[in-house]
Amino acid sequence: MSKIGRIGETGVSRLAHSEEDKLAVLKVKSWMEEAGLTARIDHFENLIGRLEGKDPNAQILMVGSHIDSQPYGGRYDGTIGVLGALEAIQTLKDKGMQPNCTIEVIAFADEEGSRFNKGLFGVRGLFGRLEEGELQRTDKNGVTRREALVAFGCDPSRFKESEYDPEHIYAFLELHIEQGTVLEVMDEPIGIVTGISGPLWLTVELTGFAGHAGSVPMQIRQDALVGAAKIITAVNELASMDKDAPTVGTVGSLQVFPDSRNIIPEKVSFTINLRDIDEKRRDLIERKLRDIIGETAEEHQLTYTLIEDTRSEPRFCSKDIMQIMRNESRKMGLQPPELKSGPFHDSLIMSYICDYGMIFVRSKDGISHNPEEFSAQEDISLGTELLYRTILKMI
Amino acid sequence: MSKIGRIGETGVSRLAHSEEDKLAVLKVKSWMEEAGLTARIDHFENLIGRLEGKDPNAQILMVGSHIDSQPYGGRYDGTIGVLGALEAIQTLKDKGMQPNCTIEVIAFADEEGSRFNKGLFGVRGLFGRLEEGELQRTDKNGVTRREALVAFGCDPSRFKESEYDPEHIYAFLELHIEQGTVLEVMDEPIGIVTGISGPLWLTVELTGFAGHAGSVPMQIRQDALVGAAKIITAVNELASMDKDAPTVGTVGSLQVFPDSRNIIPEKVSFTINLRDIDEKRRDLIERKLRDIIGETAEEHQLTYTLIEDTRSEPRFCSKDIMQIMRNESRKMGLQPPELKSGPFHDSLIMSYICDYGMIFVRSKDGISHNPEEFSAQEDISLGTELLYRTILKMI
Repeated sequence: MSKIGRIGETGVSRLAHSEEDKLAVLKVKSWMEEAGLTARIDHFENLIGRLEGKDPNAQILMVGSHIDSQPYGGRYDGTIGVLGALEAIQTLKDKGMQPNCTIEVIAFADEEGSRFNKGLFGVRGLFGRLEEGELQRTDKNGVTRREALVAFGCDPSRFKESEYDPEHIYAFLELHIEQGTVLEVMDEPIGIVTGISGPLWLTVELTGFAGHAGSVPMQIRQDALVGAAKIITAVNELASMDKDAPTVGTVGSLQVFPDSRNIIPEKVSFTINLRDIDEKRRDLIERKLRDIIGETAEEHQLTYTLIEDTRSEPRFCSKDIMQIMRNESRKMGLQPPELKSGPFHDSLIMSYICDYGMIFVRSKDGISHNPEEFSAQEDISLGTELLYRTILKMI
Repeated sequence: MSKIGRIGETGVSRLAHSEEDKLAVLKVKSWMEEAGLTARIDHFENLIGRLEGKDPNAQILMVGSHIDSQPYGGRYDGTIGVLGALEAIQTLKDKGMQPNCTIEVIAFADEEGSRFNKGLFGVRGLFGRLEEGELQRTDKNGVTRREALVAFGCDPSRFKESEYDPEHIYAFLELHIEQGTVLEVMDEPIGIVTGISGPLWLTVELTGFAGHAGSVPMQIRQDALVGAAKIITAVNELASMDKDAPTVGTVGSLQVFPDSRNIIPEKVSFTINLRDIDEKRRDLIERKLRDIIGETAEEHQLTYTLIEDTRSEPRFCSKDIMQIMRNESRKMGLQPPELKSGPFHDSLIMSYICDYGMIFVRSKDGISHNPEEFSAQEDISLGTELLYRTILKMI
């Protein structure tokens, strides 16, 4: 898989609905078919491989993750969750087992959200949770989500046909790399996830007034980038205030207009990404930040808009599934730590649909969304083994 | 001219060597030919219209400016200087005068420098002042200066043929909009320029380490954008320190890599543009700024490179030409203020070649490099009249 959209020695770039993404989806689809599953790509670009259960009326067990990547991403991320799920179901089938309920291995479309600045697209689409105007969102080249989907071969006018009734879903299981350092510090190959922190995603646009960088006196400038700089510093300081808290705050994307060295920036738009396991603390930081944005705009005579792209509460894993994972790990001779997830995953949306469980695999140095992302083959095998055992206990 | 590369109601975008730039150059070339000049485009993309003098051995009087624009620019800028020069020479020719010396009306290529982050290209080329590696500089789409020139129809291997011997140049005259508020505040239509402040152009690149914005703890981050924000704030504060000084400092262009809301910025590169009429004060600010860049990089565990793109000293206008302008204005019933130029112009390079004189035309609200840039027809006429009278006294 790492050969598709490969960058440098170890990186991958598979942006949602792109050529590389399509190659990856078709490759995994062919592997699903080799494993004897019935595979299809739906109109959201979700890839679904189905193993029919004995009871056609039983709810479906979904297992999977995503194979799209960040523009400058690593090989492992969600990919191990899709290939791990496929490996588990293939093993089950190779052993001649036919489960009572139907199992679907799923690679959700556009979990990452970096191309259109809004993620978890496929999983939200599947359950009718897309928002107004989502198909009009554009990427950096002005291509809309709708155009990208059509170019991929999907038909947005047929979304309804691809939707699922949440009542038909039994549970969701996801294997994923940790993307943090908890397991590494504890010297443990895998962990059982207890819940996912709620991310808050904002987009701020500051508007000042362009002018010649050599002639407009400093006192009368309305420099949008100077305003943005103060807000970026504030995001960093507010998120770092409580050294013992796992709060994180990031400005990851920023565009300047007209972006010329000889012109005072007229417009700057940037993203704010704020996360905390403690929702109250996150909301407090958000309030302070909104005050600072208002004050900064006033100080530099800027106008601004603040759009809320995503606001999620923390979502906890199923206690029953966690108990199965604990028992099964013990049989494997392991006692995995139990940990929260800072990053969100497709599981975040699935948590509103059904019970869910997640397994984390150790990440080297906690690095992720970077070509240096690394998880050892042995650790991934253990995570897949636990996933397989958990499935067996649930079907 | 404002129809070529028009943006919105009143803006223009004519980036160096672009399709729009070419249309504009060809249009002005046709006007030069209509006026009876011999016009040609050289291998730097300079447009030169020549009126032969009686004495083939006399030095050449050059008059002009540039017609390329900022990406989000206005109609007036250098364009009035090229069209004003053409108007003056056409008038002279229409009156049946043949000057003793040859006069050349010139539209220098790429004065603005926004496309390849390095301006005054044509005028430097004309006198063999290009620097190592300039043809390899790339624009935002990865197009090199060499490729852009070739696409325009120029031949970089024949630069030598287009070069001038500085000994052959008598003087340079330039008409330009002020791009500041001095004339407007004094309620004067035109002004006589005394000299040009020296700009210092730097490019800073900070490198940290990318990582998942949801999982890397604040304490161990190496966020290049947080470092950049502190430096942007410092540029603004250092340039604003002395409220009575005309110092200006601007970060106009900035790029983030990988520029995704869910990833900690790994690399940020941005420009610094520092100007002052007092070179010592500018150098003092530069030293403080270099210290702050070093300290910020250390604090956030970033590495950095700092490239000096341009470093110019202030350059003063010819006292003799200023005296001619003073005398001629008096005959027009005017007493134009004498003022320094914060922005640089093609005249900055010409000041190393020959005597030079500049006339400024009042800019509404001091706005420039913006579609709202405006100078009144009557003011431009007065500037052109003074240019014409100055030429008559010099030939």
